[in-house]
Amino acid sequence: MAEHTVKAFSEELDAIAQEVARMGGLAETAVNDALSAVARRDTELAQVVIQRDPKIDAAQREIEKRAIKLFALRQPMASDLRVVLTAWRIAGELERVGDLAKNIAKRALILNQDEPIQLTRSVERMGKIAGAHLKQVLDAYANKDVQAAINVWNADDNIDAHYNSLFRELLTYMIEDPRMISSCAHLLFIAKNLERIGDHGTNIAEYIHFLVTGEEIATQRPRAEAAE
Amino acid sequence: MAEHTVKAFSEELDAIAQEVARMGGLAETAVNDALSAVARRDTELAQVVIQRDPKIDAAQREIEKRAIKLFALRQPMASDLRVVLTAWRIAGELERVGDLAKNIAKRALILNQDEPIQLTRSVERMGKIAGAHLKQVLDAYANKDVQAAINVWNADDNIDAHYNSLFRELLTYMIEDPRMISSCAHLLFIAKNLERIGDHGTNIAEYIHFLVTGEEIATQRPRAEAAE
Repeated sequence: MAEHTVKAFSEELDAIAQEVARMGGLAETAVNDALSAVARRDTELAQVVIQRDPKIDAAQREIEKRAIKLFALRQPMASDLRVVLTAWRIAGELERVGDLAKNIAKRALILNQDEPIQLTRSVERMGKIAGAHLKQVLDAYANKDVQAAINVWNADDNIDAHYNSLFRELLTYMIEDPRMISSCAHLLFIAKNLERIGDHGTNIAEYIHFLVTGEEIATQRPRAEAAE
Repeated sequence: MAEHTVKAFSEELDAIAQEVARMGGLAETAVNDALSAVARRDTELAQVVIQRDPKIDAAQREIEKRAIKLFALRQPMASDLRVVLTAWRIAGELERVGDLAKNIAKRALILNQDEPIQLTRSVERMGKIAGAHLKQVLDAYANKDVQAAINVWNADDNIDAHYNSLFRELLTYMIEDPRMISSCAHLLFIAKNLERIGDHGTNIAEYIHFLVTGEEIATQRPRAEAAE
C-alpha cells in the first residue's frame, strides 16, 4: 500500500475504536443514571435514560457501517482484522448494556409509584460494582491493556456473589412481608440486569484479550455463573 | 465478474444463509427441550440443553467468519450486502436465544429439586407460543417471506400479554403461599426469558424485512413492551 493509504487506513482503525469508546461512555452513563433513578427515586432521570437509548443504538449502527466499509475496502488481516471485528463485537455488547440500563429505568418508573423499600440500598451497592466494572473494562479497551482486562474478567465472580446474596435477601423480604412482593420482584429483575451488565463487561474483557494477543482468554470461564 | 465467479459468489451467499438456518434449528431445539425439561421435570434433558449450547456459539463464530470473508473478498453491495449483514445479525440473535434456553435449563435443574408446582403449566403454554413464534420467523427467513415476518412481528404483543398476566399470576401465588416464593422466582425468570426469546424473534423479523425490502420495518415498534 502507498504510504498515504496506510496512514488513512490506520486513521480509520483509530476512528472506529474511538467510536466504540464514545459508545462505551454513553452506555456507562445510562447504567449510572438508571441506578441513580432507582436510588434517588428520580422519575425524570429515569425518563432521560429511556429517551437517550436510541443514541446508543445509532452508535452501534454507525460502528457496523464503518466495519463493513473497512472489511470491504481494506480487507484487513491479522491484528487489523481483530481491531475491526472487536469493535463490532464490543458494540454489540454495549448495545445490550444500554437496553439493560433502559430496562432498569423502566422499573424505576414503576418502583417510584410504590412505597420506598430499604433494599434499594443493596441493589445500589451492587450497581456501583457493576458500573465500576464497566468503566474499568472500557478503560482497558482504550489503553489496549490486556492485564486490566484480565483483572475485570476475574472480578466478575464478585458481581455474581453479590447477585446471589441479593437474590436470597430479596426472597427473605418477600416471605416476611407479602406486600413487598411486587416491588421486590422488580428489584430482583434490576439485580439480574446488573448481573448481566457484569457479564457483558466480562465478554468485552475477552474481546480485548483477543484483540491484543490474538488468542482467546481461555476456553472455560473460571467464574461461577450466577445460577439463579 | 466472470460467470463462474458470480456463480461461486451466489453459492457462498446461499451457504451462509443455510448456516443461519441450521443455527436456527439448533436454537429452536434448545428452546423446546428446555421447556420440556421444565414441564416434564426432566433433569437429564436439561443437562443435554446445557451441554449442547457450545454448538450454537460455534455456529455463530462460523457465520461471522464466512461474513468477514465475503465482505473482504466479494465487497458485496446492495442486496448482496444485506444477505451477509442479515446473516451476521440473525446469528447474534440466535446466540442469545441459545443462552436463554440454557438459562431455562439451569433453572429446571433447580426447580426439579423442589416440590412440583402447578404454575409450570402456564409457563409451558407461554413457552409453546414463544417456540412457535421462533419457528415461524425461521421459516420466514428460509422462504424470504416478508409478509410472514411481519405477521410474527405483529404477534409479539401476544407473548408480552402472556408474560404480563403470568407475572401477576406468579406474584399472587407468592403472596398466598410464601413457601412457593423461591420456585416462583425461578418461574418468573423463566417467563422473562421466554418473553425475551419472543423479542429476539421480533428482531429477526425486522432483519428479514430489511433483507427483502432494503428498508426498516418501521421506526417504532407497535408492540407494548413488557414493562415488568
